[in-house]
Amino acid sequence: MPPPGLVDMLAPSLSAGGLLIGAEIGPRYYTDVVGRVGASPQAVLRPRSTTEVSRILAACHAEGVPVAIQGGMTGLVCGALPRASEIVLSLERMNRIEAIDVNAATATVEAGAILQMLQERVETLGLSFPLDLGARGSCTIGGNIATNAGGNRVIRYGMMRELVLGLEVVLADGTVIENLRKYLKNNTGFDVKQYFIGSEGTLGVVTRAVLRLFPSPAARAVACCSLSSFANVVALLDLARRRLGGELTAFEVMWQSYFSRATALPHVKPVLPTDRAFYVIVEASGVDAANSLYRFENMLGHAHETTMIDDAVIAKSEAEATSIWRIRDASVEVHAMIRPAIGFDVSLAIDRMEDFAVRADAVARALDPRCGVIVFGHLGDGNLHVGAQHTDGPADIGKELEQRIYDLVAACGGSISAEHGIGISKRPYLRHSRTDAEIALMRAIKKAIDPKGILNPGRIFEIAE
Amino acid sequence: MPPPGLVDMLAPSLSAGGLLIGAEIGPRYYTDVVGRVGASPQAVLRPRSTTEVSRILAACHAEGVPVAIQGGMTGLVCGALPRASEIVLSLERMNRIEAIDVNAATATVEAGAILQMLQERVETLGLSFPLDLGARGSCTIGGNIATNAGGNRVIRYGMMRELVLGLEVVLADGTVIENLRKYLKNNTGFDVKQYFIGSEGTLGVVTRAVLRLFPSPAARAVACCSLSSFANVVALLDLARRRLGGELTAFEVMWQSYFSRATALPHVKPVLPTDRAFYVIVEASGVDAANSLYRFENMLGHAHETTMIDDAVIAKSEAEATSIWRIRDASVEVHAMIRPAIGFDVSLAIDRMEDFAVRADAVARALDPRCGVIVFGHLGDGNLHVGAQHTDGPADIGKELEQRIYDLVAACGGSISAEHGIGISKRPYLRHSRTDAEIALMRAIKKAIDPKGILNPGRIFEIAE
Repeated sequence: MPPPGLVDMLAPSLSAGGLLIGAEIGPRYYTDVVGRVGASPQAVLRPRSTTEVSRILAACHAEGVPVAIQGGMTGLVCGALPRASEIVLSLERMNRIEAIDVNAATATVEAGAILQMLQERVETLGLSFPLDLGARGSCTIGGNIATNAGGNRVIRYGMMRELVLGLEVVLADGTVIENLRKYLKNNTGFDVKQYFIGSEGTLGVVTRAVLRLFPSPAARAVACCSLSSFANVVALLDLARRRLGGELTAFEVMWQSYFSRATALPHVKPVLPTDRAFYVIVEASGVDAANSLYRFENMLGHAHETTMIDDAVIAKSEAEATSIWRIRDASVEVHAMIRPAIGFDVSLAIDRMEDFAVRADAVARALDPRCGVIVFGHLGDGNLHVGAQHTDGPADIGKELEQRIYDLVAACGGSISAEHGIGISKRPYLRHSRTDAEIALMRAIKKAIDPKGILNPGRIFEIAE
Repeated sequence: MPPPGLVDMLAPSLSAGGLLIGAEIGPRYYTDVVGRVGASPQAVLRPRSTTEVSRILAACHAEGVPVAIQGGMTGLVCGALPRASEIVLSLERMNRIEAIDVNAATATVEAGAILQMLQERVETLGLSFPLDLGARGSCTIGGNIATNAGGNRVIRYGMMRELVLGLEVVLADGTVIENLRKYLKNNTGFDVKQYFIGSEGTLGVVTRAVLRLFPSPAARAVACCSLSSFANVVALLDLARRRLGGELTAFEVMWQSYFSRATALPHVKPVLPTDRAFYVIVEASGVDAANSLYRFENMLGHAHETTMIDDAVIAKSEAEATSIWRIRDASVEVHAMIRPAIGFDVSLAIDRMEDFAVRADAVARALDPRCGVIVFGHLGDGNLHVGAQHTDGPADIGKELEQRIYDLVAACGGSISAEHGIGISKRPYLRHSRTDAEIALMRAIKKAIDPKGILNPGRIFEIAE
């Protein structure tokens, strides 16, 4: 519980509506996108400016009050859910797109800006912000930065880390690190912004950012293909890389377990029969519409002639492209269809993936023969998402399943979190993917930057163990 | 001077030839690529393995002995030149390319591997390692990582930071951080490898790395164009970006001051008359040879018809492409032609560049009307290299010129180091590009990771000031 004086002390330094207490605090501040519930916080602070964030943190630092930092609440590892005794710092009112510099191809935004708003805004200027994920309508740029978000176009544009040119961050003690530069290249000492990207709010509060933009592609070609074997999926990726080069912007794989469920949803169009083992969405974004489409169709034609793919639907309009993407964007709904289930987000070498999926399914069925897994993911990035179903039995069945799948990930040489982060929920498994020396180094950094441990404490690791 | 016992203590833990003392220490260990000379070290340690590096650092840490870390000695900011009392740790004997994984498109290399060796080795497997810079024949991968090297293809592939998947680093106390992962995505806690990339050897010694490879492009199209105005240069960049998209792999600009000198060198072919104000080398790398070349020629044809460019030479063979690139690669020789001179490596917004170049020239001429500047650089990355000539007069003329140009960079909102780093020589100007809060954060990180300050001390900043 925060010292009674703290909230009173902060209130005057916040603009109107900046402080919520008691019944003013809605479930939004302690519930996440999949319905998990955290502790009900004593206070929610909603600053409107970097100066306000700085004042809040300076006061919390002085008093040793722990702070849970919140963006769009779409994280999947419980990182933004308040824990007992934490107050909430929500960036939701710092949501402006401050400037688009068309010549420099950069956007300067506040941390609370919604991803989709930015995408749509730059689109009107003939530009594109390529980060894209299912939560685009509610996730925030600050959250994307704090978690180093990935998504569907990493194969071409990299993760959020690659899209950030400059950052403004407030440290635990209220110090403002202003590094809002527009250059791609700035080798002037340590690149301090890297510390904060992907550190899940444990080292500082991102308040503003300068992001890279790209020219809008003249044309987008999208297809959904069915394939009979995983070897064919790998061959198609190789073909697409060689034939499309820098125009390949997405390569999403779906096992039948995922595809058949997704296309059964009322708002999703079943574009292909569901009797094949694998499905792939390929997307190419080109600078020359006719030429790009020709190349794309040619590539798929070759894949069909050589029986690499069984069937394919090529979108003939932007509406059809959206309709194909809806299959992949339905992942939250598909997960909900197999509840109770546990979600995994793993990196694996491509040549371990098929085996991993088979063994993960066996792990789930060993616990209950009626269960199993759904699998899909970003093949080109080596990233699979897995939903593992378990029975409604005793709670420790879920724990047991989780443990066994993570052990399998480690046995297959994989990473236990490709893009979702560690937060609270994956913390017990951090050592499956990181050495003791790495974790000791993380702790040393945390201690150097947030010595009192007030920022998102206990996310990634407990400070003292 | 190292404690007399240290060298004796370390010698047995190093393999044969691992220790050089006295007259065995050639000028290679205290001279850099442009002929600057550091202190003559008491000892040079040349480990063959990570274990040896770890033993060396543990001993140096215990005794508080400062260490200068060396790769190919091609840095331009005196970062690798030993300072008084430092011993040298050279990675030159850890130069193996350990493995190329064709399926995963990764290379695992030791830090002392030479860039060009790696480029050529992966080329034989149909792959490409895209980092490329003039020093390719002697610079090392470890040095490229420690300095976050840039070069000619950043516009398409990013800087060295974007090309590193995994890293092995030895900390000051001998702790080995092994993070040799092959995944693109690994959001499992802090991405600790980012701390070391670009930190100029002040936080740890890079010993091995896993690097990203790309499919070899089927075709490379290269042209050199002459242009009459900077506005046309900017228009050509925009056109190339829009028409070539992800196939644009280099866009190098040269002011006449650079081009006329470079093409006067005996080994460089004067491909175009030298009477224009600007010259650009454009390179496109495509997956489909005929198609890519058609697009490239079409783009240049349009640029010519609209008088954006005055003239252009398109390479008709790989030999002609190399011959065009030789103009750009001659930068060290061109600098030598105007000696005494000071080299600058700055980032600027594109719309400030022309003005900056004019004013930099005026700054040099104000000190001596016979002097001036040569200008060239990576336009697409916002990065210019400038050589500013000064007279052979009193030494403080050079200092005065340096100060005035850096003041101009700051006045134009630029960065004082785009890709060369800070090292020793740019340290006095760090505050032109970084705030006090950023520098304080850098110091806190340095203190957390290298508490005794033994690794490359005084590079970037003095630990105590």
